[in-house]
Amino acid sequence: MTDESMHDHMINRFDTISPLDYRYYGDDPGFFEALQPYVSETANIRYMLRVELALVRALVHFGICPSSVEFQVEAACKEITAEEVYKEEHKVHHNIRALVNCIRERIPIEHRSYVHLFATSNDIMDTAYSLRYKELTRNVLLPRLIEFERELIFLARKYKDQLQIGRTHGQHAVPTTFGYALSWYVSRLGSRIQAIDSAHKNLRGKLSGAVGAFNALSLQDNADPTIFESEVLNRLGLVASPTSVSTQLVEPEYLTDLVYAVTSCFSVLANFADDIRNLVRTEIGELTDCYEEHQVGSSTMPHKINPKNFENVKSLWKEFMPRMMTMFMDQISEHQRDLTNSASLRFQPELFTGFCYAVSRLSGGMKKISINESRMQENFEMTKDKIVAEPLYIILALQKFPDAYDVTMRLSRQSQREGTNLLDLAEADPILGPILSEISPEHKALLKDSSLYIGDAPGRVDATCDKWELEIDMISNRLKAEQKDAVLREQLDHALAV
Amino acid sequence: MTDESMHDHMINRFDTISPLDYRYYGDDPGFFEALQPYVSETANIRYMLRVELALVRALVHFGICPSSVEFQVEAACKEITAEEVYKEEHKVHHNIRALVNCIRERIPIEHRSYVHLFATSNDIMDTAYSLRYKELTRNVLLPRLIEFERELIFLARKYKDQLQIGRTHGQHAVPTTFGYALSWYVSRLGSRIQAIDSAHKNLRGKLSGAVGAFNALSLQDNADPTIFESEVLNRLGLVASPTSVSTQLVEPEYLTDLVYAVTSCFSVLANFADDIRNLVRTEIGELTDCYEEHQVGSSTMPHKINPKNFENVKSLWKEFMPRMMTMFMDQISEHQRDLTNSASLRFQPELFTGFCYAVSRLSGGMKKISINESRMQENFEMTKDKIVAEPLYIILALQKFPDAYDVTMRLSRQSQREGTNLLDLAEADPILGPILSEISPEHKALLKDSSLYIGDAPGRVDATCDKWELEIDMISNRLKAEQKDAVLREQLDHALAV
Amino acid sequence: MTDESMHDHMINRFDTISPLDYRYYGDDPGFFEALQPYVSETANIRYMLRVELALVRALVHFGICPSSVEFQVEAACKEITAEEVYKEEHKVHHNIRALVNCIRERIPIEHRSYVHLFATSNDIMDTAYSLRYKELTRNVLLPRLIEFERELIFLARKYKDQLQIGRTHGQHAVPTTFGYALSWYVSRLGSRIQAIDSAHKNLRGKLSGAVGAFNALSLQDNADPTIFESEVLNRLGLVASPTSVSTQLVEPEYLTDLVYAVTSCFSVLANFADDIRNLVRTEIGELTDCYEEHQVGSSTMPHKINPKNFENVKSLWKEFMPRMMTMFMDQISEHQRDLTNSASLRFQPELFTGFCYAVSRLSGGMKKISINESRMQENFEMTKDKIVAEPLYIILALQKFPDAYDVTMRLSRQSQREGTNLLDLAEADPILGPILSEISPEHKALLKDSSLYIGDAPGRVDATCDKWELEIDMISNRLKAEQKDAVLREQLDHALAV
Amino acid sequence: MTDESMHDHMINRFDTISPLDYRYYGDDPGFFEALQPYVSETANIRYMLRVELALVRALVHFGICPSSVEFQVEAACKEITAEEVYKEEHKVHHNIRALVNCIRERIPIEHRSYVHLFATSNDIMDTAYSLRYKELTRNVLLPRLIEFERELIFLARKYKDQLQIGRTHGQHAVPTTFGYALSWYVSRLGSRIQAIDSAHKNLRGKLSGAVGAFNALSLQDNADPTIFESEVLNRLGLVASPTSVSTQLVEPEYLTDLVYAVTSCFSVLANFADDIRNLVRTEIGELTDCYEEHQVGSSTMPHKINPKNFENVKSLWKEFMPRMMTMFMDQISEHQRDLTNSASLRFQPELFTGFCYAVSRLSGGMKKISINESRMQENFEMTKDKIVAEPLYIILALQKFPDAYDVTMRLSRQSQREGTNLLDLAEADPILGPILSEISPEHKALLKDSSLYIGDAPGRVDATCDKWELEIDMISNRLKAEQKDAVLREQLDHALAV
Repeated sequence: MTDESMHDHMINRFDTISPLDYRYYGDDPGFFEALQPYVSETANIRYMLRVELALVRALVHFGICPSSVEFQVEAACKEITAEEVYKEEHKVHHNIRALVNCIRERIPIEHRSYVHLFATSNDIMDTAYSLRYKELTRNVLLPRLIEFERELIFLARKYKDQLQIGRTHGQHAVPTTFGYALSWYVSRLGSRIQAIDSAHKNLRGKLSGAVGAFNALSLQDNADPTIFESEVLNRLGLVASPTSVSTQLVEPEYLTDLVYAVTSCFSVLANFADDIRNLVRTEIGELTDCYEEHQVGSSTMPHKINPKNFENVKSLWKEFMPRMMTMFMDQISEHQRDLTNSASLRFQPELFTGFCYAVSRLSGGMKKISINESRMQENFEMTKDKIVAEPLYIILALQKFPDAYDVTMRLSRQSQREGTNLLDLAEADPILGPILSEISPEHKALLKDSSLYIGDAPGRVDATCDKWELEIDMISNRLKAEQKDAVLREQLDHALAV
Repeated sequence: MTDESMHDHMINRFDTISPLDYRYYGDDPGFFEALQPYVSETANIRYMLRVELALVRALVHFGICPSSVEFQVEAACKEITAEEVYKEEHKVHHNIRALVNCIRERIPIEHRSYVHLFATSNDIMDTAYSLRYKELTRNVLLPRLIEFERELIFLARKYKDQLQIGRTHGQHAVPTTFGYALSWYVSRLGSRIQAIDSAHKNLRGKLSGAVGAFNALSLQDNADPTIFESEVLNRLGLVASPTSVSTQLVEPEYLTDLVYAVTSCFSVLANFADDIRNLVRTEIGELTDCYEEHQVGSSTMPHKINPKNFENVKSLWKEFMPRMMTMFMDQISEHQRDLTNSASLRFQPELFTGFCYAVSRLSGGMKKISINESRMQENFEMTKDKIVAEPLYIILALQKFPDAYDVTMRLSRQSQREGTNLLDLAEADPILGPILSEISPEHKALLKDSSLYIGDAPGRVDATCDKWELEIDMISNRLKAEQKDAVLREQLDHALAV
Repeated sequence: MTDESMHDHMINRFDTISPLDYRYYGDDPGFFEALQPYVSETANIRYMLRVELALVRALVHFGICPSSVEFQVEAACKEITAEEVYKEEHKVHHNIRALVNCIRERIPIEHRSYVHLFATSNDIMDTAYSLRYKELTRNVLLPRLIEFERELIFLARKYKDQLQIGRTHGQHAVPTTFGYALSWYVSRLGSRIQAIDSAHKNLRGKLSGAVGAFNALSLQDNADPTIFESEVLNRLGLVASPTSVSTQLVEPEYLTDLVYAVTSCFSVLANFADDIRNLVRTEIGELTDCYEEHQVGSSTMPHKINPKNFENVKSLWKEFMPRMMTMFMDQISEHQRDLTNSASLRFQPELFTGFCYAVSRLSGGMKKISINESRMQENFEMTKDKIVAEPLYIILALQKFPDAYDVTMRLSRQSQREGTNLLDLAEADPILGPILSEISPEHKALLKDSSLYIGDAPGRVDATCDKWELEIDMISNRLKAEQKDAVLREQLDHALAV
Repeated sequence: MTDESMHDHMINRFDTISPLDYRYYGDDPGFFEALQPYVSETANIRYMLRVELALVRALVHFGICPSSVEFQVEAACKEITAEEVYKEEHKVHHNIRALVNCIRERIPIEHRSYVHLFATSNDIMDTAYSLRYKELTRNVLLPRLIEFERELIFLARKYKDQLQIGRTHGQHAVPTTFGYALSWYVSRLGSRIQAIDSAHKNLRGKLSGAVGAFNALSLQDNADPTIFESEVLNRLGLVASPTSVSTQLVEPEYLTDLVYAVTSCFSVLANFADDIRNLVRTEIGELTDCYEEHQVGSSTMPHKINPKNFENVKSLWKEFMPRMMTMFMDQISEHQRDLTNSASLRFQPELFTGFCYAVSRLSGGMKKISINESRMQENFEMTKDKIVAEPLYIILALQKFPDAYDVTMRLSRQSQREGTNLLDLAEADPILGPILSEISPEHKALLKDSSLYIGDAPGRVDATCDKWELEIDMISNRLKAEQKDAVLREQLDHALAV
């Protein structure tokens, strides 16, 4: 490319505005390479060219245009750059006409009328968006989420027996295990992976023209226009709405469902990040962030080490979650379309990028976290005598003692007031004492040692990890098979073209 | 009940704050009766009592408590009023303990310890919420939506051939039919009905105790605690999370999915309302609101008749759509629970009520709308000569004329500038004229009369209405069968209890 | 009133949907009495009647109607109930026409044409809304906020010297005092009180008719119609937009500003509630919730005491904060008005109610909080040796030691790794040792005892409390004077009328 | 700079994700040049360097460090690039420590300890943010808004007498003038300019250290640390919070207020854009978009010309309005700070950029709009006979006819049913006829010609335009004076440094 002013196409990354562009995506070569084929404007144009090419292939398929056009358009599409399309757009003030002109000028004049034939701009754009988000989700987003899910499963199993005090309202409740606390996220993340998987498979394309009634395609004799639409979309691995109904737009709900699935999964990540942040609090200290040699925690407090990966994830959630409202507003478009979604739709790839980045931050962050088992034990011991209240009350109730709850609460308050041991108080009580002497050895042991009171936590960990490992294996295998199919289809199309 | 001050339990409806309470729900007896069993605080308490009762039944089932307790608790639950529970709550400062106390004081002292045994408050609350929203959706919300969908299907079919100009950007584009414009909503609403149906079936309960690890239930010898949980939930027509994983909370994503499905459907309703509002604009006038004899349109302009039903629906969408953000924030709860969702969860029934009300307003509103076919024709005729541009360009392209688009645009601008007829210009053109003389009679006729250029609109109407009629019939039949089952289960439980 | 069905006007409070109605406002007699005159539908109607009356008074003032009408309308307004207006609305399907009819039927036929003369419905409604929110803010919301601010000032001063470890990222940073932590909220709340005060004073009314051009009023000969508008509004303590510009609506920004001021203040309350919740965590324990004798903390864990007031405030914030989006959407209204704000505006009083309730919960909650000074000391001592890192590095830097930060970080990490004392390490260091032996006695003492390292915390407390005490005294006095004025104006109007 | 991989610092603009970066800002050289100094990451780093420099200058001022350091740091700051800072950050994993290191390595080793002395990272960051947004608002955002306001004032005056039918509910109401409709926006935009102006002046900085208690600064003997803070901030044209209270953060409300002012102004722009879009609807046609020669309106419909500037503005509003929620969430930060605002704060410049862009689009869009006076007249004439209803009813009422409204409504409906003329019906009425024969000639004329019924529209235009012209002149002059002052201060500082 030429060496003109920076406004041509090269820009200093730090002159960009979006932190995605200068920092989270633009500053991380691996992340950039993984995402650029889907989320950049270059990608957007490449996807639209793929749709234009699929349209021409369908024209050839139905004998509407000579088969040589397919090869010519394919060659043209390979050459076209985003820069060139933008230059043309500055002339014609229309982004798709610009794209079309860039193709047209590369092919013989007698074939130019076949380019974009029957299509309205939004046939190309909506179809390209669907394809782009579908492949982004299949090729990057879901594999990363699945990887993180596997990491969580590993940790949950590893710590399935690790005693941890359960906390409700920030107060010590009754014990659980650290592995069980993690398996809560294994399950929630698993359900979101399924939701994202379902939604991305359900994205749709269209080729029904300016008002969705197949006006233009109906000019083609004797053809059911939805068959032509199917031919175009199937080449891209897409389908239309069930009955090919549309306006100028694909029904917005398909994309809305995906945006929702991603956003609701983002909340699960944010919740996880919050839990980690709380566990690394100085006073709790059950987890510790391990830092690299030269890493600085604070510019003025040399002793600080901060859970910044987890703060970052929560912060990104705060940035991206409200954008769901934009999508809800974009579900509304007057009549056959009002185009007040033109700018806002362009911002959608940011959500997917921010989300993928958050997954990577969490995954990377967890690798640097060390579990402080002794602090878990110490924290448990702070209240181990008090939390006996629940099993004590239930054991009494199982012994048919009628006011088990109230009596236990009274003794519990007394023990807190006096700093005495609750179980001792109960055993010394003239009514409760005799009852307690009758209970089973297992119950006795548990009341003596409330660390035994972890219920079925380890069993739930096993069940949960087994189930979700199976589920994500199935999804993962299917995604890989689909990726392979997509590559084959592309090769086949190309072979036929040549 | 006693006749004390109004703060006891009776309140002047106009002293309430929520427009739902004093106006939309409280002021409409039919709507009130339909919704009160699900959305009121009375309903909330009734549902929690049902869960407490199911828990006792399970205790009996497993032989943990004597079978007479079931009958005693059932009788108690029938008597308990919301007022009474609130009075008790004022004493103990805990809503579920208050509920439990109200049951306990009605049964023999020796059986009291079985009430609420093994349960934490939120086992009751989350399970009751799920049950409540499930039955509300199944019994009221979905049937109303389905009825509205049927009305739309009827209208779409009726007007499937009714010519209407398609509008993009508010500008005349190319023709469609009014029925096809409606079938866009048939399809979108249909997909939302499916989404709401899926989400409501997927609501879950729990009985896993204070931190979700089945700590209390594990005190019961030799029992897999998840079997006990299943027994309780199945009696209510519910299940637990796939592997019975939880914290103090059911995974929030199940409810979030339903709230999303409803909210995204609300956007479809709002879009529909906007389209209607635009079509009744004085200058467009394709639809007219028919008013009753004494109805006032404006307090100062006696000639005004306003599309207030449709304005109301849009306005309710503006009120309720942002509340999805509250749900996203409520997905986040620290550790085993932080209870910062205590108040916000209480507001959730408002969304369902507002949504049901909007469906009724739309449905009622559409019944008063008359379709002004002559205005549709007049509006079409405003631009019938100009919109020929699209078929003209495509027909030329199909004749292999290379610059069909650009030439047509040039002529189109010329015709607008000069006020001349585009087709005349094209036919008079030395290059285009000969080409146009070669085209098929069908194409000729269509260029002469652009009202023929409606594509496959009627065909799409048929396909769409047929498909969705079938789909909603299936859903509707299944819902009815489930309602019947629920009644039978309740009767059976009762019979066993007696 | 008659004793017909409950749908007449009396409703069981627990049959309402909104938790405001059945629980937060409806269940708290004191709160109900304070708020009902502003936030109920009864209040809404009363305020609209006040505007209608002010309009008639202005007609009398300008000699357009006989002075007796004023008295007749005043008497009518006193009698009219919300129930009656709603009954009439069911007939005429227009809320303001219903209101007007209720007045008209109470006055002599020959005077009826003066009622509502020149006004469009929204002249009445928008003016009534402004008046209602103005008086609600002045009479209830600001006084309660100011009272809470005074409580915070008291606490901040009381604990201005109470050592507390400062926490950033949840990690121990350097010390502060508990009083200073509170004065952060004194200042933030103070600034929000000013913002709410400014916004509520700036609410506006209008009397410019159906499209805001004073069309109707201009039928009155020789009069500048804005003078008439001023006369009406001034009687209510309001003014119009600066140049009396309007459409059917008052410029929505005046109300938006108030909604924003309240919402941004709500965030400050939520932040405060979060801080308290964290400080009562079991592991931190610097604050403790004191509970009443019979209060239950958990329905299954008798030992639990939870910070439920503070959880409730955070939860209410989650419910109400997103509603700001509704207000932003309601800023948009097509042309002279589109009425898609009709329902959403009716929900606005809920924000004010929820906010007032949150202030009361916080204020009440703080009264039950006890400060655990020994836990503050213990927590500080956890890291007192480590946090020396910051003063150590700065003292070294002040001694012109060039790499003070890096060296201190290195030693700090070493001390953490080895479990040794940072200051000992520094003093033992061959380079740092000699430097440290040269520092001032004050600096030496501070490095030995990092509890001295609280900076200017007490001084900032004094300055902050002094300033804001003065500011809120001024606001408070002005509000009281305005309340007195309002009463006097009302009495005067009445005297003139009689 | 070196010529390494693209991940160094140069990036293909079309490989960015944000539409701001590749399209709205990055693709528009003029816009880029105007905004880059404020909204880019380069700008962010430049502003932070300015704060570091101001800090060193204050150290010199108070004799804490030698005056030569100021010159050394100033020289260093000029050289430092964003790229370099990011490279260093990759090593130390801390953005501000990286910045500090870049300064330090450029100055003599014996002076390095003065760099960043007493400061915590966020002293630099929050102060730099405030300064950046203040200067962006003062230098770019407000001047552009003011220019647009002037354009609106010009148009409002030009069309102050241009008859236009007023529309409420999309229905013809009573007449107004096009100039008056515009002056509604003159006033609303004027009030928002004032709000933005107030908020930007009120942004604050801080230099109070890690927990806001001036811990570090208090190590400096005998100094009131707030004086030192003032010295630093005043050099930047900023002040601290009233009593210098802070945590690690400046009180977030100052920025929240500005974000709100901008967002609420954005809604006014969106409302304006909606009104324009409606007026260019084919059926209304009162405004027309004038297009350039080669501009394409649709890729398939050569006849289309679309209001895309106005659609774009509405779309941007949908994108940016919900982000206010992020700011509300960022008001909340635990204790002395939790850093979950680290990422979200970085996205804030996007709002300002999107807003500035929207102002430019609107301003540019309005220049291409032509006003179609004949269509305004035609549209008015559609209902000119019907809208007489309002003046007719009021004139009757002024004649003391008691049921003026109801009678007029009845006749109005009759006229609509029968297609007859309302005034004719009224004059033919045995009761109304005689009354109408008595009314003033002016009223008679107005009833005959409802185009006279425009009230005080032209007078309100004059008053509104005069007022706001004055107000914005004052603001504009003040802003220019402040810009001049800022340049002088910078020069003076530099002179002193050299």
